[in-house]
Amino acid sequence: MGRVVVDVMPKPEILDPQGKAVANALPRLGFEGFVSVRQGKRFELEVEGDVTPEILETARKAAETVLSNPVIEDVVSVKDASGEVA
Amino acid sequence: MGRVVVDVMPKPEILDPQGKAVANALPRLGFEGFVSVRQGKRFELEVEGDVTPEILETARKAAETVLSNPVIEDVVSVKDASGEVA
Repeated sequence: MGRVVVDVMPKPEILDPQGKAVANALPRLGFEGFVSVRQGKRFELEVEGDVTPEILETARKAAETVLSNPVIEDVVSVKDASGEVA
Repeated sequence: MGRVVVDVMPKPEILDPQGKAVANALPRLGFEGFVSVRQGKRFELEVEGDVTPEILETARKAAETVLSNPVIEDVVSVKDASGEVA
């Protein structure tokens, strides 16, 4: 079974209240050294068989239209992650 | 500025209704070839200066306690992503 991983992040100019909440919580809980936090989404798409260039192209289109909202989010990466351990 | 990327996914045995909804929507919208979808979270932690081993260790602890719920989620990776283009 192949796997495609899609990473989606809020655009830099968009406020990210979840990330901001995490960034504020970290030093309060003793985790120092982080200036800011952004929270996005990670999708793992399982594929029957290998990840072909066609599958990757389909995943890229799906990422732009279904997995992300192009008004507020950027698709950061769409990559073949078949070799990685889950 | 350095950057640490933390990936969090629902544990395999946990139902993932968001991922299921996406998996059902894909073929309906013409994106064929995907067997299942899991949806998780991706955090980008900005660091002032370089990502040292200490910072990475702090990020790892924060990932296990603040960024994920260990009952239902796994921290898939915590890595230095300073070199990557945002």
